[in-house]
Parts: sequence; C-alpha cells; structure tokens
Amino acid sequence: MKFTRPTLLIDIDKCHRNIEQMTMKARQAGVAFRPHFKTHQSLEIGRWFKTYGISKISVSSLEMAEYFASEWEDILVAIPVNINTIEIINTLTSTIRLHIVVERIEIIALLSKMLSAPLGVYIEIDTGYGRSGIPSNYIEYISDIAHAIEHEPLMTNSGLLDHAGHTYSARGKVKIRQIAIAAQQKMSRLAERILPHYQSMDVSSGDTPTCSVMNTFGSATEIRTGNFCFYDLTQWQIGSCNLNQIAVCMACPIIAIYPDRQEVLIHGGGIHFSKDVFIHSEYGAIYGLVVNEEDWSQPIAECYVSKLSQEHGTVKVSVSLSYKLKLGDSLYILPVHSCLTADALPFYEDLGGNRIEKWSGISASTNK
Amino acid sequence: MKFTRPTLLIDIDKCHRNIEQMTMKARQAGVAFRPHFKTHQSLEIGRWFKTYGISKISVSSLEMAEYFASEWEDILVAIPVNINTIEIINTLTSTIRLHIVVERIEIIALLSKMLSAPLGVYIEIDTGYGRSGIPSNYIEYISDIAHAIEHEPLMTNSGLLDHAGHTYSARGKVKIRQIAIAAQQKMSRLAERILPHYQSMDVSSGDTPTCSVMNTFGSATEIRTGNFCFYDLTQWQIGSCNLNQIAVCMACPIIAIYPDRQEVLIHGGGIHFSKDVFIHSEYGAIYGLVVNEEDWSQPIAECYVSKLSQEHGTVKVSVSLSYKLKLGDSLYILPVHSCLTADALPFYEDLGGNRIEKWSGISASTNK
Repeated sequence: MKFTRPTLLIDIDKCHRNIEQMTMKARQAGVAFRPHFKTHQSLEIGRWFKTYGISKISVSSLEMAEYFASEWEDILVAIPVNINTIEIINTLTSTIRLHIVVERIEIIALLSKMLSAPLGVYIEIDTGYGRSGIPSNYIEYISDIAHAIEHEPLMTNSGLLDHAGHTYSARGKVKIRQIAIAAQQKMSRLAERILPHYQSMDVSSGDTPTCSVMNTFGSATEIRTGNFCFYDLTQWQIGSCNLNQIAVCMACPIIAIYPDRQEVLIHGGGIHFSKDVFIHSEYGAIYGLVVNEEDWSQPIAECYVSKLSQEHGTVKVSVSLSYKLKLGDSLYILPVHSCLTADALPFYEDLGGNRIEKWSGISASTNK
Repeated sequence: MKFTRPTLLIDIDKCHRNIEQMTMKARQAGVAFRPHFKTHQSLEIGRWFKTYGISKISVSSLEMAEYFASEWEDILVAIPVNINTIEIINTLTSTIRLHIVVERIEIIALLSKMLSAPLGVYIEIDTGYGRSGIPSNYIEYISDIAHAIEHEPLMTNSGLLDHAGHTYSARGKVKIRQIAIAAQQKMSRLAERILPHYQSMDVSSGDTPTCSVMNTFGSATEIRTGNFCFYDLTQWQIGSCNLNQIAVCMACPIIAIYPDRQEVLIHGGGIHFSKDVFIHSEYGAIYGLVVNEEDWSQPIAECYVSKLSQEHGTVKVSVSLSYKLKLGDSLYILPVHSCLTADALPFYEDLGGNRIEKWSGISASTNK
C-alpha cells in the first residue's frame, strides 16, 4: 500500500481478541478489570472495551482523564497525584467518579481541605519494582494513610495498588511467574492486615506481563493491564505474547534505497516510533522488526530498523529485498513499545484504510 | 514555581541571542541562512527569526510545511521526497515557493508529470554521514539529475544539499572542525563541477555542530542549522555550545520523594522528554541533568534523570537535596535532545509564565 506519512495500522480483529481474552481471564479469576487506556488513548477503541462489559478504566494523567470523561464514569489516574492539580481534580469529580493515587500521608490533609466533591483514593504499594509506592512491609504507615482517608468526609479508600513493573526484566514465562507470585504474596500479606478494617477496598494490580501469563492474581480484586490490547516487541521478548498477538504495526513509506549498503531509508523517525530500544540477540540495539504486510507474525530475515533520526529511519535489508523494493512502497514494522509509538502518532488506521481517532494530548485544562 | 504538568520553559533572551549570533555569523560568512524549524515548530518563535531578516526556512515534513505556509513563502522540506505526496506538494506550490529533496533520477520524471505549479528541487549529497544522499564523488549521476531537473518546465535546480550529521559523533571543537572541513571539501569539489552549468544553484549545508563551530562554510551559499536556537545536552557534549546557551528547560512537578534511596519521582516521562539517551562520564546513561531554577548553566551535583517510564521520571538526588525538596515543587531539567522534547510537548512557557504556541503535529493534509 501507498502511504503519504508514517501510519500506525491496527488489526481490529487481533485487538478485539486481546481484549476478549483478558476480559475472560479476569472473569474466570473473579477479579474486576479496569484496563489502562494510556496505551491506546482513543475513545473509539475504548468503545470496543465497553462491548465486553468494561465500565471502569485507568489512565496515566489527569488530562487523559479529562479526555475520557466524556464517555467513562469511573476513572483512576494511576500515578502519584501532583498536589498542584486540585483545580483539575475538582473539575473532574464534578462529573465522574475519579480515583487518584497517594503514597504520603500529608497529601490527604492537603488535598481534602480543597476538595469540592467525593474522591476515591488508592494507596500505592511497592512490591519490588522500586519506582513508586510505599514498601509493602511498612504496614503501620499504610494503615495510618488508610485511616486518614477514612476520616475525610469527601474521600474514600478505593484500594491498595501496586505495579510490579520489575516483570519487565523477565525473559520467559517462568521468570514472569516467579516475580509475579512474589509480588502477589507481598500484596496478600498487606491486604490481610489492612482490608478487614475497611469496607469495599480493592487490591489493584496489573502489569501486562503478569496479567498475560498468570491466571490467578493472589489477593487482587482488580487488574489494570493496558499494553495487552496492542502488545509489542518488548512484550514478546519478555514472554507476554506471541508475535501474532501484536495488533499494531507501523507502515512507513520508503524514500531512498541503498542496495550497496543493504539499507533502505523510510519516512518514520524518533518522533513516530519513539527512541525506545529493543536488544535483539542477533542485530543488537534496534527500533523495530520488519514484517510481511499480509502476516505481521512473520519477521523478514535480516530486516530491522537500525537507526532513527527525528524524521528518518534507517532499515537494514537483505540484498535480495533491496532489489525488490521500490520508492513509495511501504515497510511494515512492529514497534518496540506500542504505548510510546501510539502516543507519538495522531491517529490509527485500520486494515481497510479507515481512520481511528485518538486523543490529541491536549485537554480543557491544558489550554487554561 | 508550581506546575500542574511537565512544562517546557523557554528563556526568550537566550533564544534571541542564539538566533542573533547565528544570523550575524551567516552574514559575515556571506551565506544565506535558511534555519531549520523542525526544532521549535512554532509560528510565534518563527516571528522572532523574521526580526533578524530571515525569509526562507527548512522543515522536516510536508505537513510541517503546511503549518508554516501561513507565514512563510519559501520553504524547503529537507528530507528525500515521498513520491506518494504529490497532492500535498501541489497544494503547497499553489501558495508558496516550495523546495523538495531528491536523490534518485527517476523521481524527476515521476513527479514532473503530476506537478501543477513550479517546484524547487535540491539534490541531496552524502558527504560522509551515510544516512541519505548520493555519494559526493558520483559526479556523473548528480550531473544527470541536475540536467533532468533543468529540462522540466515546472522544476528548478535549487541546489546541492548535504547534512554532515557525522559531526554528532565528535567530542570537542577540534574534531567537529576536522569532520566539517572534510565534508566542505567534498561539497566544494562537487560544486566546482556542477554549478558552472546552472544559474543560481545553491550549495546548502548546515548541521548544528558545524554551524556552531565554523566561521567559514567552504563553497556553501546557504546554511540550515535548526537545533542551535535551543541547543541541548547533546550539543553541549559535542562541543557546539556552552551550558548557558541552552534556551529550553523542562519544569517537572515532584510527585514523590525517597530520601532513603536518594531518588525523587517527577511527572515527566518518555512521552515528554523522549527516550534519547545521554552518556554521562560519571552517571552513565541518563535522560537529563537537573539545574538551578535561577541559573540553567549550573547543574546540581549528583542530580540527574536516571529512568523514564511513559509518564514518570526517576531523578537521582543527593541526600541533602532530598530533604530540602517538597512535593509539588519542581525540578528543572536540561533536555538531552531539545528537538524531540519540543516535538513531544504541546506548547512552551516563557519565564514570565506566558504560553508560546506551537504546531500540534496535525495539518490540513493529515486530516484528509
């Protein structure tokens, strides 16, 4: 196919299958599913989730919550709250059920005195990733926060929340399971101590490797995976998915061909793919694998994105392929990290050439 | 200062100084200046350039040309043309003087039969970078392209164009000069053979390291640097600028503090900074250096962005600083690659808190 610009294609059937499978898994495990929409950032794709009965979502910023608030009534902003954003919080809580994340007790008093409507609060727990959250064995401190929330008339204890992002360092399902179970055990020990004192407090977990590989979630009552609806090369390398589950693929027009150095230049650079790197066992650090247009699960041998400038991409190709390709043709490239690639592009296109809209990155409060 | 979201600050005075210095340098060297606007992507900042007499610009995509076409009449799209974009080209040539870049002779006939208005064509030359362009010693082939352009009624030979991007591998001014001079010599030898046969053909060069360090540009009649208006840590490491010339700085709100592990969590991740990496001699691979709010040329010791998720950034801080910082305060961070950081963010803010608008990444043709 001919493209005028780098275009992120989406295989709607694969995406639906990914959503359906994860929804079924959550149902069978008896946990609620609050998918993370930071990956697709699209109201239209969000509607696909609704057909599987999803009614609550996670997002990664208040501005993304503003975008989704037109169609979703229960939204968790899954990042420690920035205390400067109380105005945006108050705007959102006036129309939807909003949940934020805290991990310091002083935030509760600071926020509550400025709150104008009910707000759900999750307490973030660190179960080993070491990025954010309170270490899961600080039971007394966590208990104090829950207690403080309970005493604020406009606040509710929504739950204990962790993100076991250290599963991303795993290679293979065995290792993912090992990390996931250790994190689950930490959450379970904590939940046993905290939950009996509060009504309807969730235990919310859900990095994509764990949700993809595990069928049980310990004490969790809610999972939050997001990337699973698209997957990508990174998830494939970790062991979360097969190549044929990857539901997005970049189509990049060829703008130069260099058979002598076995390279092709594409329109598609760092501002489209992102600069997230994939370490390939043969090719080293790469930015994408080239696949067949008709079958994205078939990487073409010796064919990968080796360099990215702002707008240009350099693709290594075999000699034989370099002689077959023509200017204006497209290369089809599986992204390293679909969340960042999707974030970078202004829309998706389905396999029939129809556009699927997504968030522009700008919300009402951005423009204030 | 308090920020509700990661915000790219711009020091207007520094930016003006960078523009003024480069404009003066071009004037003294007797070359035209066609700055690359892919860095700032802003009509408003573009107007600052107009005050220094700039009338021609470079951009990195046809869609960016559409954005700037409302205020600029002479625009070069400095990337090998995608032959699928003839409709966008025809729309642009109906209102402005547009130049494209080619490096294959068959493109000339392909494009010309569909052209509806005059189009300027630069021939891209590879002077050693190895990304795009025709090797500078393929004189006969280059001559054939120029000849083909000359015979198309709607096409003009705008010039020979190179991008000596291999200066980015330099560390220090001596090495930049060495690479720049070698590239200039290649362009000069080629220009001697081609230019006598054509009227008013430019020789267009201009990576930022070369333009920053050199005062003479060989046979070049035009320079195109873009990053110089902001600069960044990468240019500082190469030797193109001092830290006090860097005119943009990210302000990121602090959302968690971990004195025990000497880390601070900020709102500011891969979708704001980009994932371009800087290899620091002491800290290893980092995503930004933290500076004083009042003086961006003063990096704070042992303080740098060590990890980036989609929305979160992890900043290493000294023990003493970790006890001084408060939630809601901001960290001020020099970006690794200002072009990608600017591209990722929806606007700039000046030091007085005024917003400076930029391109959304969406143009008329994007929405077709």
